[in-house]
Amino acid sequence: MPIFTDNASASIGAWGENQFLRHIRDWLGDTAPAAPSGMGDDCSVTPLEGCNLLTTDSLLYGRHFDQHLPAEWAGMKLMNRNISDIAAMGGLPRFALLSGCFPAQTDQRWMEAFVAGLAKAARNHGIQILGGDLAQTDKEWMATVTLIGNAESPLLRSGGSAGDSIWVTGALGGSILGRHARFEPRIEEGRLLAHSGRVKAAMDLSDGLAKDLPALIGHGLCAVIDPAAIPIHSDALRLSKESGRPPVEHAACDGEDYELLFTVDKSVSEEDWQSAWSKSLKTPLHRIGRIETLAGQAPLIDAKTRQPFSWSDGYQHFR
Amino acid sequence: MPIFTDNASASIGAWGENQFLRHIRDWLGDTAPAAPSGMGDDCSVTPLEGCNLLTTDSLLYGRHFDQHLPAEWAGMKLMNRNISDIAAMGGLPRFALLSGCFPAQTDQRWMEAFVAGLAKAARNHGIQILGGDLAQTDKEWMATVTLIGNAESPLLRSGGSAGDSIWVTGALGGSILGRHARFEPRIEEGRLLAHSGRVKAAMDLSDGLAKDLPALIGHGLCAVIDPAAIPIHSDALRLSKESGRPPVEHAACDGEDYELLFTVDKSVSEEDWQSAWSKSLKTPLHRIGRIETLAGQAPLIDAKTRQPFSWSDGYQHFR
Repeated sequence: MPIFTDNASASIGAWGENQFLRHIRDWLGDTAPAAPSGMGDDCSVTPLEGCNLLTTDSLLYGRHFDQHLPAEWAGMKLMNRNISDIAAMGGLPRFALLSGCFPAQTDQRWMEAFVAGLAKAARNHGIQILGGDLAQTDKEWMATVTLIGNAESPLLRSGGSAGDSIWVTGALGGSILGRHARFEPRIEEGRLLAHSGRVKAAMDLSDGLAKDLPALIGHGLCAVIDPAAIPIHSDALRLSKESGRPPVEHAACDGEDYELLFTVDKSVSEEDWQSAWSKSLKTPLHRIGRIETLAGQAPLIDAKTRQPFSWSDGYQHFR
Repeated sequence: MPIFTDNASASIGAWGENQFLRHIRDWLGDTAPAAPSGMGDDCSVTPLEGCNLLTTDSLLYGRHFDQHLPAEWAGMKLMNRNISDIAAMGGLPRFALLSGCFPAQTDQRWMEAFVAGLAKAARNHGIQILGGDLAQTDKEWMATVTLIGNAESPLLRSGGSAGDSIWVTGALGGSILGRHARFEPRIEEGRLLAHSGRVKAAMDLSDGLAKDLPALIGHGLCAVIDPAAIPIHSDALRLSKESGRPPVEHAACDGEDYELLFTVDKSVSEEDWQSAWSKSLKTPLHRIGRIETLAGQAPLIDAKTRQPFSWSDGYQHFR
């Protein structure tokens, strides 16, 4: 189903703002509480006791998805991108606001499926959608979610130090083949990391290992990575056949993996950590390297050659 | 200064995302705390104890402002629109997130002045800007603020009943001449209303009295208004001379007044309320009518003729 329609009576432009809002509330169903906690007043009135995490993320047609993506997946992607940021902090998502800037020619049924996807992802994680804002654009379509959550012991990006091991959940690369919109945020995994007391730095992989890993490594430190240890997704292998680029380059640079990247304190052995993880979770986990103090080195180097990778600066240099 | 530039080196497109983010942090100055409370991690980590109000509002170039508005005012307008929603609940604003969807050709200096305006409005009210999100559009420019606040006794829209008097702060109409972007949100006024224990319904006037007042009046009730009591702003008088429409129509229908509209319990006399108000505040205040039970009537009628006003359905019918 295309996102835009030439049939004015099937477009959201056929609705007034109030009618559109009523439809959105209907589509959100049980994820939208009644006013004043839900939409209907100047603000949502909802006690935020215990909440300490805030994040916001947008989804733009033509940038983050296109006509090939089913509307429901687009909705799930927007909510799950935000949830992934909460997962990266070791938190639980609680409350969301939705802001939409849509052109009048947006298809009513497309919009319904989009909101249904958003609600589905929210329902999966017990999130309440408390309100939002609508505005009309000329041609471009975008939606923004603000998400509030809580973490007893938030996992920060900073905090890794020399000797700590570097780990990644799942497998990486080729997410453009579908996983960029069909992923399950690593909430349970983040919770385990936060409660372990052994994880000193964590983030979610949105731009790809090559760009994201340096953000996790402090000044005067570098990430020494064993390229053979990077878990390569079968999608990266498929894409590699089309692109002619090595699979590991796809794994490191494609982005939108929404896996967790984190460091474990050097006092913990690889075996102990793997076994503690496996007791609670079936999610694949790989140790890909460690942090070292290496003056004058690049922030990301190959464990074997001690040199930066050809892909160390991220995907864009290869375009 | 135009919002867009053809000089690529003077546009935000000349910056990478990280450089743009660093500039925004600089421009925000003391309104942007350091990470992890401020930008720099997957989420902001900020305890929201006591907070119970959430709102979000967007500002679009070509819809909510145009090339005639100085960039700093555009920034102030976006923040103050959100603050006005908090004021309408009788609350205090605390924390904000900023989300921007901008085309690459946005002028760097325009952007700086916009963010400075946003920070100025935030500083006026002690708001901390905790983080946000950036995305690139093709041509359209829009920014969204999510604002979190707290109110000990939130003022809801619902709650007015037959016999209650209807009041409005300030003077209405003609805001397009400048006040739509240069207004001071009625925070102090909202605080007084919330703590009085006598105000049963309140909202801020964004769409104009004619459209907003019915949202404050419950089913089976109607607002009986004395048109001579509606406070008419001098801007409405000026505009009336150009448009040929009566000043009261501008006052009731123009919108973007950002004044407070509220109802006072019928047990409180007009004199008592005015005198209690004047002890604390210099803001002009007018009693414009009262709520009545009138089966089968329109939600908004003229006290003298007992009929709907020619403008009762709002501005758009006159275009």
